[in-house]
Amino acid sequence: MFRKELKVLDCTIRDGGLINDYQFSDEFVKAVYASTCQAGVDYMEIGKKLCVSDTYTREKFGKWNFCDEDDIKRVVDSYEGDYRPTLAVMYDVGRVDTDSLAPVDQSVVGMIRTACYVADIDKGLDLVKRSKDQGYETTINIMAPSAAIESDLIEALQQVEDSPEVDYLYFVDSYGAFYSEQITSYLNLFKKHAPNKELGFHGHNNQQLAFSNTQQCIIEGVNLLDATVNGIGRGAGNCNLELLLNFLKNPKFDARPIYKVIQEQMIPLRKEIEWGFNDIYGISGHLNQHPRNAMKLRSNAKNKDHCYDFLVDSLADS
Amino acid sequence: MFRKELKVLDCTIRDGGLINDYQFSDEFVKAVYASTCQAGVDYMEIGKKLCVSDTYTREKFGKWNFCDEDDIKRVVDSYEGDYRPTLAVMYDVGRVDTDSLAPVDQSVVGMIRTACYVADIDKGLDLVKRSKDQGYETTINIMAPSAAIESDLIEALQQVEDSPEVDYLYFVDSYGAFYSEQITSYLNLFKKHAPNKELGFHGHNNQQLAFSNTQQCIIEGVNLLDATVNGIGRGAGNCNLELLLNFLKNPKFDARPIYKVIQEQMIPLRKEIEWGFNDIYGISGHLNQHPRNAMKLRSNAKNKDHCYDFLVDSLADS
Repeated sequence: MFRKELKVLDCTIRDGGLINDYQFSDEFVKAVYASTCQAGVDYMEIGKKLCVSDTYTREKFGKWNFCDEDDIKRVVDSYEGDYRPTLAVMYDVGRVDTDSLAPVDQSVVGMIRTACYVADIDKGLDLVKRSKDQGYETTINIMAPSAAIESDLIEALQQVEDSPEVDYLYFVDSYGAFYSEQITSYLNLFKKHAPNKELGFHGHNNQQLAFSNTQQCIIEGVNLLDATVNGIGRGAGNCNLELLLNFLKNPKFDARPIYKVIQEQMIPLRKEIEWGFNDIYGISGHLNQHPRNAMKLRSNAKNKDHCYDFLVDSLADS
Repeated sequence: MFRKELKVLDCTIRDGGLINDYQFSDEFVKAVYASTCQAGVDYMEIGKKLCVSDTYTREKFGKWNFCDEDDIKRVVDSYEGDYRPTLAVMYDVGRVDTDSLAPVDQSVVGMIRTACYVADIDKGLDLVKRSKDQGYETTINIMAPSAAIESDLIEALQQVEDSPEVDYLYFVDSYGAFYSEQITSYLNLFKKHAPNKELGFHGHNNQQLAFSNTQQCIIEGVNLLDATVNGIGRGAGNCNLELLLNFLKNPKFDARPIYKVIQEQMIPLRKEIEWGFNDIYGISGHLNQHPRNAMKLRSNAKNKDHCYDFLVDSLADS
């Protein structure tokens, strides 16, 4: 598949950090950054930009939950090549301080992505506006649309359409619940009610469909595609960046640096933390449930593979 | 997705046996058989039906490479429920003895599937004819069409169309190479040149696309779908039966017995043998290569995760 408008956003550090409270070594973050530069990726999301507080400390929650300019600069300065992706950070509704946001020309960051549920769309759009006021490229990532009431989702989409500050509107398969026909059906809703917005997609791999659903989104006209190195991410993880770059024929992309960072950094990391498809996440995805119960079970060494028990319990709960 | 014509064929033992030379315990085979009965699966392929020889012995290559009637009967008789799938076995061109094939009414088997490459289509169709002469349902499984010259493939398809003995024509993604748009494109070729044949699909999961490509086949009108419990199968394995049954809304299917046999049989087995997606198979699938080099690397404990080295070597070879 080739379309010149297609852009790829690597969110390895941001989504991967949800597994380990952003306790990545500097060496790891630098290696991932360098690989995305060499691979020709368009955007690289390096973490969340949340507020430090007494209970939400840098020590416990990791520096990439806060993304101070100096921390990012050290990563950027460690790479010597010419091409660099635009750096992105993520805002969560209710946990950010927009007053401290520097204007874009004083920052190494170029894009701010705001994640919110349908119910928080007004708060989300306020953050987008404040980001745009400071000159950043912006996205609004509507989480868990598979669990939203359709009329609420439509209202949110119309609000996004009426917000000129939003550059990209993201369709997010938070629960890894969608099949390809549903991807098409929901995107038709997005295109109908927000016809002037460029679309993005962020998948989860609960049912081994993150990559194929990303392909389906491309077919349906989505131009900004999220992926992570080796599919790292919360629970079942995300669309594998290397598979996506293999699929895209745009000559600006090169998957080889991604395989190199997998071999050198991800393989050792897999011994410390777990991500990716397994039977438990397959069930939570199929049942369109938040992965929290699945993740809780996976952290229990004794029962983590008891998929039949998990299915029976989940059906009883639903 | 619901369509009353959709049928599911479990090939857990037959494709899974390619990993361990069919050295499954009787308890394991009986448990898988019982689970397919309880799940309402339409067909269950219990092994290959090849010839014993001095070099190809039952001891070394396992009883499910040969599928003697008595061995199958012991499995069938171990289950007490009413509903049973039609049992299938597989023929490989050049390694079978059709003279010893009992008529269908003297066998517990009801379907014989013949696997062949495009180049062997005449030999394959001869085996199909001999199977049909004895009363069996038949399929011809054309392997590795992604590596065939299109004019040769078209000729083979036309020969299948002209063979009334073929009940199902299988499209087989042997290398796990196809993306969904290619699935559609190849199926259009199949439908154009064999318009009167019912179609089947057998996928491999090299690029995490076995399940999604099976969905794409359903959308394109394929009615017989291969899958295996937990995706077990050679290399990256197959479409996961439990995911497929979750997806299919046909009320005759029930995924719960499949999750039960995963919990009780597959999880312990995963400690002994490996199957499923990994970086190495992702590369061989993307490059449309036979998985033999990938499987060889995976058997080398020291280098099995060296995906960058494998990619560079594979590109140099291609």
